[in-house]
Amino acid sequence: MTNEIKVLIIMGSDSDLPIMNEAAKALEQFNIGYEKTIASAHRSPKRTSKLASEARDNGIEVIIAGAGAAAHLAGVIASETTLPIIGVPIDSSPLKGMDALLATVQMPGGIPVASMAIGKAGAKNAGIFAAEILSIKYPEIADKLATYREDMAKAVEEKAERVKAGQL
Amino acid sequence: MTNEIKVLIIMGSDSDLPIMNEAAKALEQFNIGYEKTIASAHRSPKRTSKLASEARDNGIEVIIAGAGAAAHLAGVIASETTLPIIGVPIDSSPLKGMDALLATVQMPGGIPVASMAIGKAGAKNAGIFAAEILSIKYPEIADKLATYREDMAKAVEEKAERVKAGQL
Amino acid sequence: MTNEIKVLIIMGSDSDLPIMNEAAKALEQFNIGYEKTIASAHRSPKRTSKLASEARDNGIEVIIAGAGAAAHLAGVIASETTLPIIGVPIDSSPLKGMDALLATVQMPGGIPVASMAIGKAGAKNAGIFAAEILSIKYPEIADKLATYREDMAKAVEEKAERVKAGQL
Amino acid sequence: MTNEIKVLIIMGSDSDLPIMNEAAKALEQFNIGYEKTIASAHRSPKRTSKLASEARDNGIEVIIAGAGAAAHLAGVIASETTLPIIGVPIDSSPLKGMDALLATVQMPGGIPVASMAIGKAGAKNAGIFAAEILSIKYPEIADKLATYREDMAKAVEEKAERVKAGQL
Amino acid sequence: MTNEIKVLIIMGSDSDLPIMNEAAKALEQFNIGYEKTIASAHRSPKRTSKLASEARDNGIEVIIAGAGAAAHLAGVIASETTLPIIGVPIDSSPLKGMDALLATVQMPGGIPVASMAIGKAGAKNAGIFAAEILSIKYPEIADKLATYREDMAKAVEEKAERVKAGQL
Amino acid sequence: MTNEIKVLIIMGSDSDLPIMNEAAKALEQFNIGYEKTIASAHRSPKRTSKLASEARDNGIEVIIAGAGAAAHLAGVIASETTLPIIGVPIDSSPLKGMDALLATVQMPGGIPVASMAIGKAGAKNAGIFAAEILSIKYPEIADKLATYREDMAKAVEEKAERVKAGQL
Amino acid sequence: MTNEIKVLIIMGSDSDLPIMNEAAKALEQFNIGYEKTIASAHRSPKRTSKLASEARDNGIEVIIAGAGAAAHLAGVIASETTLPIIGVPIDSSPLKGMDALLATVQMPGGIPVASMAIGKAGAKNAGIFAAEILSIKYPEIADKLATYREDMAKAVEEKAERVKAGQL
Amino acid sequence: MTNEIKVLIIMGSDSDLPIMNEAAKALEQFNIGYEKTIASAHRSPKRTSKLASEARDNGIEVIIAGAGAAAHLAGVIASETTLPIIGVPIDSSPLKGMDALLATVQMPGGIPVASMAIGKAGAKNAGIFAAEILSIKYPEIADKLATYREDMAKAVEEKAERVKAGQL
Repeated sequence: MTNEIKVLIIMGSDSDLPIMNEAAKALEQFNIGYEKTIASAHRSPKRTSKLASEARDNGIEVIIAGAGAAAHLAGVIASETTLPIIGVPIDSSPLKGMDALLATVQMPGGIPVASMAIGKAGAKNAGIFAAEILSIKYPEIADKLATYREDMAKAVEEKAERVKAGQL
Repeated sequence: MTNEIKVLIIMGSDSDLPIMNEAAKALEQFNIGYEKTIASAHRSPKRTSKLASEARDNGIEVIIAGAGAAAHLAGVIASETTLPIIGVPIDSSPLKGMDALLATVQMPGGIPVASMAIGKAGAKNAGIFAAEILSIKYPEIADKLATYREDMAKAVEEKAERVKAGQL
Repeated sequence: MTNEIKVLIIMGSDSDLPIMNEAAKALEQFNIGYEKTIASAHRSPKRTSKLASEARDNGIEVIIAGAGAAAHLAGVIASETTLPIIGVPIDSSPLKGMDALLATVQMPGGIPVASMAIGKAGAKNAGIFAAEILSIKYPEIADKLATYREDMAKAVEEKAERVKAGQL
Repeated sequence: MTNEIKVLIIMGSDSDLPIMNEAAKALEQFNIGYEKTIASAHRSPKRTSKLASEARDNGIEVIIAGAGAAAHLAGVIASETTLPIIGVPIDSSPLKGMDALLATVQMPGGIPVASMAIGKAGAKNAGIFAAEILSIKYPEIADKLATYREDMAKAVEEKAERVKAGQL
Repeated sequence: MTNEIKVLIIMGSDSDLPIMNEAAKALEQFNIGYEKTIASAHRSPKRTSKLASEARDNGIEVIIAGAGAAAHLAGVIASETTLPIIGVPIDSSPLKGMDALLATVQMPGGIPVASMAIGKAGAKNAGIFAAEILSIKYPEIADKLATYREDMAKAVEEKAERVKAGQL
Repeated sequence: MTNEIKVLIIMGSDSDLPIMNEAAKALEQFNIGYEKTIASAHRSPKRTSKLASEARDNGIEVIIAGAGAAAHLAGVIASETTLPIIGVPIDSSPLKGMDALLATVQMPGGIPVASMAIGKAGAKNAGIFAAEILSIKYPEIADKLATYREDMAKAVEEKAERVKAGQL
Repeated sequence: MTNEIKVLIIMGSDSDLPIMNEAAKALEQFNIGYEKTIASAHRSPKRTSKLASEARDNGIEVIIAGAGAAAHLAGVIASETTLPIIGVPIDSSPLKGMDALLATVQMPGGIPVASMAIGKAGAKNAGIFAAEILSIKYPEIADKLATYREDMAKAVEEKAERVKAGQL
Repeated sequence: MTNEIKVLIIMGSDSDLPIMNEAAKALEQFNIGYEKTIASAHRSPKRTSKLASEARDNGIEVIIAGAGAAAHLAGVIASETTLPIIGVPIDSSPLKGMDALLATVQMPGGIPVASMAIGKAGAKNAGIFAAEILSIKYPEIADKLATYREDMAKAVEEKAERVKAGQL
């Protein structure tokens, strides 16, 4: 890990990659260094604990953790570090992500996890939220976020124009 | 721990004691030695890992784990031992235990947790299920379980008699 | 039934076979003898009762029962034997297995059923959990489970390497 | 049992009596003979099977079955008789009767159970529905049902008058 | 309508036909005369009221009503007749039939509807349940039901044989 | 009914009065004439149909309908008139109003009901929404609504001041 | 905007167009002028506020707002105007629209939103409900609504005829 | 506002104070300056927008927003600033906070809100999570968080000792 990597993206399984890549893409938009890896709360608990407990010393400032079903990953990581943990519930069981959402968000008092929405929207927002956290320390990220917001508002205006013109 | 203690009852908080004592009472009915203790998946992860990973060597044969909200306790214990883990979801959040149930039962393939019902009924059944597991090794427990079943059936008959007699 | 068959896998319908075969495959991984059969709690109650009540005398030590919708199968079997019963809720109705989960896991105090997750993950875990139960009596199964866990952890490490190398 | 008893009210536990008495009261309103008793699908399976399988020969024409949690009672009874079975899901677990409702109503194709609403409203309606079933054979019950309906409509009118008069 | 038609199958829309035909097929198996028609509680309230209020005089003895979404059809029919009404909740909205189930089964005290399961299983069981109701008046239907049950149990045995023989 | 009564408040039972009075209070705040009455979709279908089908001719311009459980009232009224119908789901069953909400809001295409929130908040908003509907015809109501909004915003400011001053 | 446009259809994203066009089609059936546009509560809050707060002065009399996931759009618009707001929850997240429904309908007391059903049925009904609101001011719309209802009832009759004739 | 105030706690109503004070207490434990105030997304949209859009310039680095029912507050604030927003869903409607949770967490891609658990546990964790965010910029807060974690682990050990000693 280099000094420049600020965000660690951990997912429970490589089958979560198509979802969690949304977080990576969002971070790239703000030029934020990240590393992504796989660690399962259940199948590789030692690896998970080690990644979490060494993260702050390795220069990591935010951890994004995505998992499905009884999604314990974000909570288990949160129990091993005081860095801010962002959880992404993944829709990979018949219950459509409601299980992953409740297992991620309903953390008991003392050990917080910041839950995003279920699935791709949540993964994308995890990247943006990591940028918002970092923006309180790195003003250039705050600037990029401001531009990003303006671009989003403009994109809505343009879509509205196209609807008005009957193009959509 | 003595050799005679076969079951470890772990709960996430002392506020879970009134629920988890039902498991203890059930074990006592079958004369099965147990130890109960507190360990939080989130607030004391090292203690929890240690209890789980050393359990088999300490003569433990079944672990019962009870927790509420985003109930990760049973899953975290299961990740550190291959002993059978029985999870008891506890109704301690506004969602009435649905969060604890899904966080306990929806374990991904590879690391099983045996979930009981939410709350006191589940805790009682956790004790009985531990006895059923032990019964495949200790025939005297199988005998006690058979008697327990007969007594339950008789109790139903007696209640039915009292209803017929207009006493209930 | 030979002495070597330790686990009975019962499902409510042959349409459940693709799910319940996951339990069988897991048992094979640990070299555990099993028999699989079909018995419906509702369409063939006598057959179901007979299978359950004679199981212990036939040398069965664990029963795995999978059913969907108002999944009564595991509970009905549990009412006829004191062997440990593992229930697998199957996602075969419009409610996505929530009905099968609640009908399996919410057993009243006195007659436990150990519920696994909904669907294939649950069926696989039912096989592993049966192995964990048997491991308290048969040390060679405990050894196989330990190896299985190590292999899972290694597989995670390997996937992580491949993600790092940009291969995933 | 006398010939006059047409309806059998079975409940899983005497704690269900305050709910299931609503069914009895409704039957009394239509002068229909009934017997109420206790039989648990899980704690007394033989008693339950026997009650169900002998019911038609004993002159019973409708069975009402009330149970809570993983409410298997109505389904188990339905598997042992071809009489019409009315199920009453009882709100006796932390999940507020949603578990009992799904375990009662989501019967697989082949063995029907007629589910009423959760709790007292459902128990009362079970009694009325039994009367409606019997009304196709006993015209005097059809007459009583017609009067009952008229009385209900009148009661609404009277309440409306009192609201208009500012008395409510 | 001829005297021989005992069951009226009403559905809210012709798009419900593939589901509700399961009820018709079940009735045919027991040689029970039926008529099926379309009437919407909301789009054709007068037609619906008329069908319901005249049904008993037309010789109808059971009504089966299937509808999706906020499924009011069964309840509206029940308010206009004292015949037994069987409701089939249909899975035709994004909520997967949970809306139709609750709108069908949660009838307030006084006006019962007998709810079956959501979708095809429920429609099939509605036909069988109608047969069970009629069986208390027409002994030949009771006989057919007994045979039907025996056939189902035999079919399970045969499937079990085929599983044992490795044919499934 | 006088010409001045613009809103009809209908509830399924007098036990709904404490909830539905919130709608009445809101209407009084805007000086809008209303009449409240009781009519059950199920227990008094004719009364309900009559109230709905004659409402427009009686000068009614908006109908508010409140009911619990399988809340069919608003839908049944909507089927008999083209006036705007506002539905208030009432929390009067063990399912906490989720049944009433789905039975009110999930109306099939063709016959709309405007659903408010469950319970008192919904009843209050039903009154305000009726005022908003009437405001497009009666400018004085638009003025009153504007003032009401300003007063709400001011009340928030005052509360904020009190919190700042440590008075709350 | 011309004077003739009475209804403003706002949606959170152009991906909602296939759903929200159902509202437009319904308005066209009643010859009601409308404008449809895109404005996101979150990505373009200023645009959304401006559209809402200027709507009444621009001659708009009803606003229809459709959004998915944590659907804040209707509520945010309602906070900026006293015109009647109709919300359409859109099924665009893994939770099948339950999130959008609750975020739309559960408005706190003081600021109402009239929620329709989830998805296309709700969007269509939003158009019809807008017509019903306008019908209290514009009698010609009331006439069109009456005809529309009659046509729906006739269409049901025709379908019923075709079912009877075995054509469906 | 002084430079020292880093966290703004906003709640939708003064009735949320008993819940949101948990966030304040947590911040005090880490010696972090905060201001708490009331602003409703719906009743005072301008005040809410102003608080949010000026927050970063006022030196605020994290905003905590708590609201119940269709909880739009956190999302509305997030739409007006790029600071990290922590949402606390409050259990203040009959749906037990499920509505507030989904309205808070299911934010669409582009505008993140970090959701905590429902109710007091969530409010406490919101304060701790704000500290974790600030800890990446202010090392003294990282130290305090480390101590806080150690104290929690010790408290668990002490409780475990007391359970062992039979004192609990």
